[in-house]
Amino acid sequence: MVTKLCNPGGDSRLFSDAERQGVYRAVYERRDIRAQFLPTPVPDEILGRILSAAHHAPSVGFMQPWDFIVISDRSVRRAVLENFSQANREAAERYQGERREMYFRLKLEGILDAPFNLCVTCDRTRTLGSGLGRQSVPETDLYSTVCAIQNLWLAARAESIGVGWVSILDHGQLRSLLGIPAHVTPVAYLCIGYVQQFPASPELEAKGWCQREPLSRLIHFEHWDARDEARASRLIQGGEVQA
Amino acid sequence: MVTKLCNPGGDSRLFSDAERQGVYRAVYERRDIRAQFLPTPVPDEILGRILSAAHHAPSVGFMQPWDFIVISDRSVRRAVLENFSQANREAAERYQGERREMYFRLKLEGILDAPFNLCVTCDRTRTLGSGLGRQSVPETDLYSTVCAIQNLWLAARAESIGVGWVSILDHGQLRSLLGIPAHVTPVAYLCIGYVQQFPASPELEAKGWCQREPLSRLIHFEHWDARDEARASRLIQGGEVQA
Repeated sequence: MVTKLCNPGGDSRLFSDAERQGVYRAVYERRDIRAQFLPTPVPDEILGRILSAAHHAPSVGFMQPWDFIVISDRSVRRAVLENFSQANREAAERYQGERREMYFRLKLEGILDAPFNLCVTCDRTRTLGSGLGRQSVPETDLYSTVCAIQNLWLAARAESIGVGWVSILDHGQLRSLLGIPAHVTPVAYLCIGYVQQFPASPELEAKGWCQREPLSRLIHFEHWDARDEARASRLIQGGEVQA
Repeated sequence: MVTKLCNPGGDSRLFSDAERQGVYRAVYERRDIRAQFLPTPVPDEILGRILSAAHHAPSVGFMQPWDFIVISDRSVRRAVLENFSQANREAAERYQGERREMYFRLKLEGILDAPFNLCVTCDRTRTLGSGLGRQSVPETDLYSTVCAIQNLWLAARAESIGVGWVSILDHGQLRSLLGIPAHVTPVAYLCIGYVQQFPASPELEAKGWCQREPLSRLIHFEHWDARDEARASRLIQGGEVQA
């Protein structure tokens, strides 16, 4: 952990080293959990804390377009699992041979393993904020909702709680199952619970599905065409925090 | 700060109280900064750290669809500011009377005030991850990019650095200014730098544009139509962390 701290603005609420390390630990030790869920219930108080973290995300025009559907009922979750299974069979068809076998060995959801699921939605018509900031890029309400999800994901990690985002779902079916109205978009379906462990690296990396891209290839200066890997490498040298 | 910790899975990398508090502090003390930027340069090492935090966000199928364009050149930023000014004049037309006056009093960007800007993009055709998880909901690549932005935003707060998301921009013009190719979507244009202070509450709340919605109204149980504010209030009682 690099410890150099800068405070030119005289931030009176400067983070201590341990607090700052907590933020980086949450970032680096957060995992997309599918296989490691324990059935142990999450106390209401802690669920309240991670939902409150979500609710304090930034939102365009302070629109707060999110809603949270907490799903514990196993019959509802079995229906979501059936939705996943169908969508996953269709998704698998794009792979062939060894890649297809590898695909089927991946565990891509923890819908029934986790003690509860959470559907996070975006109300595209919410009038809070009076549309401020949404005229140029209407999708910013969806983006705000994702900021809430990432807040929740990091707060959960700090509470030793794992989160897995199930993206292989027919959202039309999900919408009718959960009674989500037409003006509301389901953004994420999450499985949430305590875990046996947080794996050291992302499962898709550990299982050889693909590797992490070097960050230096993804940094441009002033213009898209102006990549400079040497300059980018210097930038992140010492900056890559290893938790 | 509530300190009850649960660790049923025996998480060997349990967060200390201070580390966990750091995560909640970042969540609650993060602000969308427009008016408080200092021109002080951000050291390369710290820029590297917050970019690395972004790069360690979750992404669908480990696709890592993001790129980062670091923009310091004032002539480029002046062109972006002109883009904002035009888009903002158009946006203001939806408001009338007192609301319109209030709108014009809001400062909605810090493009030239901050020492640098950052455009975060999403390459919709990146083949990393081989499309895993993207067939049901193709927008998940955009959502992954927003997770990266929120990671960066929280890491920046822990470094006493402010971030402001400028959403009032014509993205077509932004694309041609920065040379962003057609298959890449600009997701966010951020102003980044040290600040005079982090305001105690969101500017739109402080200035009376709108208020924070009670979280209990946004929680549903099992089904969209099953809201239960009393149950939701109990859930978040003691759970709302006041930093």
